[in-house]
Amino acid sequence: MATIEYAEYQALNEKTVVDYVMAHEKLAKLFQPGDTVVASEVGDGNLNLVFKIHAEQDPKRTLVVKQALPYVRLVGESWPLPTDRARIEAQALAVEYELCPDHTPEVYHFDPVMYLIAMRNLDEHIILRKGLIDGIVYPHLAEHVGTFMAKTLASTSDLVLAYDEKKEQVGKFINPEMCKITEDLVFTEPYRKTERNAYHEEITPQVRAFQADDALRTEVAKMKEKFMTHAQALIHGDLHTGSIMVNQADTYVIDPEFAFYGPMGFDIGAFFANILLSYASHEVRTEDEATRKQYRDWLKSVIVDTWHVFVREFKATWDQVDQINMPKAYQDDYMLRLLQDAVGLGACKVMRRVIGLAGVEDIRGIEDVEKKSIAASLALNMGRKMLMERETFTTIEQLVETVTACTPSYPWQ
Amino acid sequence: MATIEYAEYQALNEKTVVDYVMAHEKLAKLFQPGDTVVASEVGDGNLNLVFKIHAEQDPKRTLVVKQALPYVRLVGESWPLPTDRARIEAQALAVEYELCPDHTPEVYHFDPVMYLIAMRNLDEHIILRKGLIDGIVYPHLAEHVGTFMAKTLASTSDLVLAYDEKKEQVGKFINPEMCKITEDLVFTEPYRKTERNAYHEEITPQVRAFQADDALRTEVAKMKEKFMTHAQALIHGDLHTGSIMVNQADTYVIDPEFAFYGPMGFDIGAFFANILLSYASHEVRTEDEATRKQYRDWLKSVIVDTWHVFVREFKATWDQVDQINMPKAYQDDYMLRLLQDAVGLGACKVMRRVIGLAGVEDIRGIEDVEKKSIAASLALNMGRKMLMERETFTTIEQLVETVTACTPSYPWQ
Repeated sequence: MATIEYAEYQALNEKTVVDYVMAHEKLAKLFQPGDTVVASEVGDGNLNLVFKIHAEQDPKRTLVVKQALPYVRLVGESWPLPTDRARIEAQALAVEYELCPDHTPEVYHFDPVMYLIAMRNLDEHIILRKGLIDGIVYPHLAEHVGTFMAKTLASTSDLVLAYDEKKEQVGKFINPEMCKITEDLVFTEPYRKTERNAYHEEITPQVRAFQADDALRTEVAKMKEKFMTHAQALIHGDLHTGSIMVNQADTYVIDPEFAFYGPMGFDIGAFFANILLSYASHEVRTEDEATRKQYRDWLKSVIVDTWHVFVREFKATWDQVDQINMPKAYQDDYMLRLLQDAVGLGACKVMRRVIGLAGVEDIRGIEDVEKKSIAASLALNMGRKMLMERETFTTIEQLVETVTACTPSYPWQ
Repeated sequence: MATIEYAEYQALNEKTVVDYVMAHEKLAKLFQPGDTVVASEVGDGNLNLVFKIHAEQDPKRTLVVKQALPYVRLVGESWPLPTDRARIEAQALAVEYELCPDHTPEVYHFDPVMYLIAMRNLDEHIILRKGLIDGIVYPHLAEHVGTFMAKTLASTSDLVLAYDEKKEQVGKFINPEMCKITEDLVFTEPYRKTERNAYHEEITPQVRAFQADDALRTEVAKMKEKFMTHAQALIHGDLHTGSIMVNQADTYVIDPEFAFYGPMGFDIGAFFANILLSYASHEVRTEDEATRKQYRDWLKSVIVDTWHVFVREFKATWDQVDQINMPKAYQDDYMLRLLQDAVGLGACKVMRRVIGLAGVEDIRGIEDVEKKSIAASLALNMGRKMLMERETFTTIEQLVETVTACTPSYPWQ
């Protein structure tokens, strides 16, 4: 069997990806002699081709091949992107798998010329966002996500890593183009009039008010500064509910192509933000009041429980290192600052998902315009409150109660 | 003329350094045919050989050659150091010279194998620390240092640099071993019992009290965290009064071998800290009360004026870039946070210079033990007050008045 070595990048298709797999021994051995191996392209993200490949004889003999495209899929070839993000993603998956194999898909192979990652096919799992839209409860979600964040963030920070290894890792994960997307789409464009913003027309008065609110924009600028300067840990960088695969038993975090050394609160806040976007959407998605309350109570408990699991696992990891020069008060202060960072950065994630280019299906998928406006307005008010009052929150319970007490401004008075 | 190319690193001496210079055309041309070129090693730092080289026929035909030693000179070969810091220094000098040529010595040549920098000889200048010890007033000091800091810090930050250039620069200035020295000597060892601390015996009670003070140690830990995670700008990293060359007309900042992307407040605070150490030393160095008051008033004015020059030049640099998404309130908040960072990080620089391995001649050079203890105790109290109250300071005048109102605890009650 000859290994195919591509001398330069080319995008694969459903046929050539099978040839590629069968020509690489490490991947081919996932199949049996005589297997008919087929591929289908299933990418629904913006940046990549994703092929699911399986044997027709037994769909359990399977893998996923993810290949970086050289442009943003959502926008087209006019927005070029360096394919180097596949290297970042492969490196990040390797770090995450080492630190938290229970919640990271195993990587089988990385091709630095083809910007291609071959990895475990999580085909018994669905994207968490879809499950939340359908009102499904995942009993282990908080435990799993809290553990994943604690292990990956604490262990890649100065709290645990040796001084030289940390700095070397910072260099390996410099990721300018992907950071730029976040800087623009999360922290800049929602607060200006720009062509790429994609909110629905009915919500315009509230968006305009936000864009004219200098107090709000000042706090957003501080969050952007934190994102750009705070090299605290190797963060996933895009930890929303579309980057999490779940079923009733397991949870996997995928797609760390935005990974870099940034503020831990950006990951924690991204997860909280997307649970809160789901919370806002169920204001109108679920008609029956009892069902709505029950599901939203579970969503609230996910945020509270995730934080407590995170703190427990984070401190456990931290406490394994030399503590001699870190009084207990420092650790308490550190955790409080993490909470407030998560609230402020998460707030920006909530607002950008309503105003900016990349919305969330939870809200943008609501067909009825009135209902969509209620959910969008509620989310904006939640985000604003989180951002402006972030330094007043000292417990996660206080955050959740305050934020979920927000009401929509729509219909306009 | 044959260029000498060394295949591997070797430390030069007063003879071989002249051979080296005369074998490199760019350096040799600083001299005239027939010149007798001589060298003397004058390094009084801890990490390098420094040769002053001149023509006996005319001392104005001159240069300096600085060569990194592979160990810490003060401690000896038991503390090895990567010579890569010479690359960092040459790169940093190049950036600083581009941004602020009036206050940066010109580099003529960098040799990456020999870890050698050939640069302008500032032989009409003296080390600022020596001038301060002797009670000399430098009328342009605040204007020059404030300008240097503003131009180098603003222009290397996200406020001015393009997103990708900033991140590339972060990677080029990753400097783990030099940062480790600061992490240990400034932020860790002074607050533990360690063999390398080098305070004089009489001051032991106050040092022990600091080392037992968990509230103080908690704040120090936060400053250490800021130093390790806040990739805000290309900082000099060692901007004390021993890194500044002066005369009545000019000011040059030298020795940026500790440069990396860190918090701007570490540079600003280092300068303020060393002016305050001089202030503390003149409590006992100058007998005559009127003279003492006059000189110390000038030292106070240096801090106040430097900050105001810094703010003026920093905002001027910042204002040249796109401001559309940065309300004025963000800029004001940014400058206030810079001030408070400078106070907190500078506080740690004050205290380490009394307790830690590397003291300052201003205080350690005082022969009379009683007098030295008064100055040291005063400096410690100033440092402690700055650190613990840093978030209460909103103007530089308030800082200077508060800190200079401190009194020594020695003699002990």
